[in-house]
Amino acid sequence: METGEALVVFRKGISKFIEFNEAEWDMVSRHLDFKKLKKKGYFAEPGIVCSEIGFVLTGSVRYFNIKDGEEITGYFSFENELVSSYRSFLTRQPSLNYVQALEDTELVIITYKSMQAMLANPALAYKMERFGRLVAEYYLICYEERMSSFITKTPEERYLDLLNTGRDIIQRMPQHYIAHFLGITPVSLSRIRRRIMKAA
Amino acid sequence: METGEALVVFRKGISKFIEFNEAEWDMVSRHLDFKKLKKKGYFAEPGIVCSEIGFVLTGSVRYFNIKDGEEITGYFSFENELVSSYRSFLTRQPSLNYVQALEDTELVIITYKSMQAMLANPALAYKMERFGRLVAEYYLICYEERMSSFITKTPEERYLDLLNTGRDIIQRMPQHYIAHFLGITPVSLSRIRRRIMKAA
Repeated sequence: METGEALVVFRKGISKFIEFNEAEWDMVSRHLDFKKLKKKGYFAEPGIVCSEIGFVLTGSVRYFNIKDGEEITGYFSFENELVSSYRSFLTRQPSLNYVQALEDTELVIITYKSMQAMLANPALAYKMERFGRLVAEYYLICYEERMSSFITKTPEERYLDLLNTGRDIIQRMPQHYIAHFLGITPVSLSRIRRRIMKAA
Repeated sequence: METGEALVVFRKGISKFIEFNEAEWDMVSRHLDFKKLKKKGYFAEPGIVCSEIGFVLTGSVRYFNIKDGEEITGYFSFENELVSSYRSFLTRQPSLNYVQALEDTELVIITYKSMQAMLANPALAYKMERFGRLVAEYYLICYEERMSSFITKTPEERYLDLLNTGRDIIQRMPQHYIAHFLGITPVSLSRIRRRIMKAA
């Protein structure tokens, strides 16, 4: 994606959190970077401090941990969504998980250094604090819903929830990643899908 | 606790997030309320919108969901910690979980209405946005560490982590709540404790 277009898409994408006027946007846009990841390239890795928040222009990423040699997929981010190993970004401690491109992926990047510079700039500070608050709250809400659904819902209910989000996880992700995301085996997922198709 | 003392404890307790000058503090303190919960009293319940953030002056609370008639304890808050059903507070949707006093508990309260009033007050807005950002980020970090530890660590490692926090969960909480918090049965927890005591 060409730089001018990328900036327009990013500005629109974050407008659900914050809107900048022209003078502010002029300052913000000078703090942005761009990045391309090839399919399977890493945005974050355990043991390495994640110094960037990304905004997905095209493509997608998945978040996973490794347990007993197996990849446990915890989350996905698609176009118009933010991506980071956020705890690592905030604490400056090494990431606990992998974030990997599932497809060739283009991102707008805010580095930790740029974020600090914008938070320290009196002309941007208020809006950046607000932006940071709303982003952190958004992800906190996602985490809380995900934790509760694991405790209180059946795998079948979680699968139906995923269908109802309207996100194209189901179409674009390999089945075994979706199964892990739902906390079940790929075999169980196939069984749930057959049951739902018969009932439909 | 007497009101004057409670305000001093609260101001010191949140100073890790934000410090208010005297003029600001004068405004903030007029927006605070106080609440006492008897042991087993509820701070939040499923189906009801949680309209308060609390700061624990004395006592403690636990967070739990009910699954197949059983209480699954997910988290605890002690003195000098914040408590809320935060997703419900932020989204104005009914809580997904219970928050219950484990002991007689005294709290300083910020209601949703007070929070909005302070965020809309030009003399407080910047600091309240920052306070909100740092609180949301703090809990986001807690969630991310908790999720990762469930995926990548053994129950024994999670128990040792809990010992190492120095928090008095171990002394003050019933064993079966701690077991659920660690994602294991009370019997497994007893086994882990015996193993650790023998090794010490």
